[in-house]
Amino acid sequence: MSSSDYSALGFKDIVLSLDGSVAVISLNRPKHRNSINKNIIEELIQAFNLFDKDDRVRVVILTADPSAPAFCSGADISGGWDLLWDAEAEKEGDHAHRDSGGTLSVVIYRCRKITIAAVNGHAAGAGITAFQLPFDFRFVWAGAKLTFPFVRRGISAEATSTYLLPRLLGHSRASALLLTGATVTPESNLIQDLYYQIIPTREEVFPVAKAFAKELAANTSQPSVTYTKALLQHPGDSIEENHLLDSRAIRILGRSNDAVEGVNSFKERRSPMFTDTLSSRSDPWFPWWRSWDITHRKSKL
Amino acid sequence: MSSSDYSALGFKDIVLSLDGSVAVISLNRPKHRNSINKNIIEELIQAFNLFDKDDRVRVVILTADPSAPAFCSGADISGGWDLLWDAEAEKEGDHAHRDSGGTLSVVIYRCRKITIAAVNGHAAGAGITAFQLPFDFRFVWAGAKLTFPFVRRGISAEATSTYLLPRLLGHSRASALLLTGATVTPESNLIQDLYYQIIPTREEVFPVAKAFAKELAANTSQPSVTYTKALLQHPGDSIEENHLLDSRAIRILGRSNDAVEGVNSFKERRSPMFTDTLSSRSDPWFPWWRSWDITHRKSKL
Amino acid sequence: MSSSDYSALGFKDIVLSLDGSVAVISLNRPKHRNSINKNIIEELIQAFNLFDKDDRVRVVILTADPSAPAFCSGADISGGWDLLWDAEAEKEGDHAHRDSGGTLSVVIYRCRKITIAAVNGHAAGAGITAFQLPFDFRFVWAGAKLTFPFVRRGISAEATSTYLLPRLLGHSRASALLLTGATVTPESNLIQDLYYQIIPTREEVFPVAKAFAKELAANTSQPSVTYTKALLQHPGDSIEENHLLDSRAIRILGRSNDAVEGVNSFKERRSPMFTDTLSSRSDPWFPWWRSWDITHRKSKL
Repeated sequence: MSSSDYSALGFKDIVLSLDGSVAVISLNRPKHRNSINKNIIEELIQAFNLFDKDDRVRVVILTADPSAPAFCSGADISGGWDLLWDAEAEKEGDHAHRDSGGTLSVVIYRCRKITIAAVNGHAAGAGITAFQLPFDFRFVWAGAKLTFPFVRRGISAEATSTYLLPRLLGHSRASALLLTGATVTPESNLIQDLYYQIIPTREEVFPVAKAFAKELAANTSQPSVTYTKALLQHPGDSIEENHLLDSRAIRILGRSNDAVEGVNSFKERRSPMFTDTLSSRSDPWFPWWRSWDITHRKSKL
Repeated sequence: MSSSDYSALGFKDIVLSLDGSVAVISLNRPKHRNSINKNIIEELIQAFNLFDKDDRVRVVILTADPSAPAFCSGADISGGWDLLWDAEAEKEGDHAHRDSGGTLSVVIYRCRKITIAAVNGHAAGAGITAFQLPFDFRFVWAGAKLTFPFVRRGISAEATSTYLLPRLLGHSRASALLLTGATVTPESNLIQDLYYQIIPTREEVFPVAKAFAKELAANTSQPSVTYTKALLQHPGDSIEENHLLDSRAIRILGRSNDAVEGVNSFKERRSPMFTDTLSSRSDPWFPWWRSWDITHRKSKL
Repeated sequence: MSSSDYSALGFKDIVLSLDGSVAVISLNRPKHRNSINKNIIEELIQAFNLFDKDDRVRVVILTADPSAPAFCSGADISGGWDLLWDAEAEKEGDHAHRDSGGTLSVVIYRCRKITIAAVNGHAAGAGITAFQLPFDFRFVWAGAKLTFPFVRRGISAEATSTYLLPRLLGHSRASALLLTGATVTPESNLIQDLYYQIIPTREEVFPVAKAFAKELAANTSQPSVTYTKALLQHPGDSIEENHLLDSRAIRILGRSNDAVEGVNSFKERRSPMFTDTLSSRSDPWFPWWRSWDITHRKSKL
């Protein structure tokens, strides 16, 4: 699919583009503070799955128009919680429900490319959980108000935030953010380590993230990134098991074209020209971990 | 039990009080530097279990008289380690021993309400492990001397500190604190992230923690806090399993009175009036994790 | 073996010495920027295993000549990746490969004594993974360039770094370092928590680390350190299981000579004179965790 063909997908709430090997997804509900409805979740899941499979794509950035009222104000609960429930699942009982923010979190987390959230506005609820935590890197506007409101709305922390936030920041800060329902700004001690870079103006967030993405796309190996990311997400249960995993990964990659180019470019003191892709370097050992199907049998997700 | 009836419990080493929905436990062995004996552990376990079950209680604060020589100086080892051993357990062998600080840590950690340690004095040994690490929030006096003395006393780190400290702060800082037997003050880089707030004077620690507790008690939902805390303590083993857990939690809470009030108060831009309690919102799915009985068969704990 | 006998081991790429209870391993390939070949890995594994078993040794320091071009420049890939592969393992397939940096990481991590990396120069690749991450403490020169180059060389993160780095620093910073292939200095927010102390000049790094080691060697109990380190590395899967483990550890140590001396020296307000060793205090319960044999059947490691 060529870049200009993304319009054929008929997305309404997001806009896709591809600049070389950097894909950009822009939230496109500014009149609704980029709040979350069922459609935007479905479109985002499609987009991340598309870019995961497209060998041209090395980095995926999620961002928004910096003039929108918010990066993402969270689930649109103006009509109550009803937007959360699915009629089919409701017939079966509590076990059938799938939190929509979480379905997106899982897809972003599983994306084998580098993922970046370029948070150029305020963010609340799923706008800071699903739309930020599962990414590899987060860039943020220094003035962004960041809110984890769940305990102040009568629900519980969602979108896999109780899995991701303690891993990212440790339990001391994760508990403080989730149990207070805090609103903080990026320079708060509680949250600053979440962000790769904190940027003074809304307008600069995306260009800075884009330049970072371009540099990584140009100078890193796609299989190297994917295997390293997978080892971080699925380490051994012990140092010994991890040693067996990373030994095998390095043996597989060590005979790749990119490994040869990595050595040659290093010796020749020049930038590398990596050509391997996830398709060209696929190996039956990968993925080595058990894959979960989280779809309920009647769910469309 | 009305608040004034706590005296009927006959506690000697702690004093209990209830102000609205905030319960306060004050250590009451100032002549012994609030050091730990078997009785204070037993009283604290009773107190945390009592407040865990009392629907009126939303937050539990542990503190001490700010004029006491210490917040807690740790186990009273003036008579050697003998205070640690239990005659019944000794007959059976090493496997029967239960570290008394750890029995308390487990009870505090399991408490389904928000727990706060208001550390308004020096703390050593179990005074920083059992009396601080299992809490949700820690407030501390900036001048407090904080000591993890175990490796300098010929014993090992206790009271589940090797479980809790790395989770709270990461292994780099946890190892540094436990393997050096360090004495630090709260602003040390090694430990500052343990504390929600560092406060200049001993006298201010409790009032600041109390005001924080009051705000949380007034504006957070009791079931929301309990489910979020449980998800933080018992996350899925993978992001997918966590998604199934938090999906079910949000489905259960999403039909609660508090969830309706959460939306309504948000839309009406007013403070919420949450009325659900752990008793009124009990659900057979909760707790979803396997419960451990840590009691040795002859142990009274 | 007396200290002067270390020369009988015939090591070429490292130099060993013992000063009281502090053992020092000095990297000795300055003409090759202390880069890593198969021999230095084998010598380091022997050295750490030797000091692990020697009851005289309480602390092991790894360092280098501060005038060498680097503390360690990583694997010597001037001849390509071939130095990584082992002819025997190659015959059997990818599963038989053992990453040499990882074989060292596991041995250092398992060492029951306090381990310190005194990083008095630049470090790259395995020079920052295997040669730093598995240690209990890291001291570093403020001017050191620290590089995680893997994704920029066409391979994946090795030497158990995907296990160790997220545990040490949390996933937010670990991912940032490994997925960018970053070069940073120690005062970077991304990495500063890895270091116990950052020191202005290369020359001061070792003396500062040595003085720290001497103090710990003099005032901590060898079994206390070993049990605490083991509890940090092999905690319970739940707080309850950890309570059972640390209860048993404290019961075993609580009747040791060092525990008596710990109390007596505390009461007498003097420095302790600890005499127990890992040999004298061995207990059949230790180690309580399942031990992994990571040796491939034809591997010599």
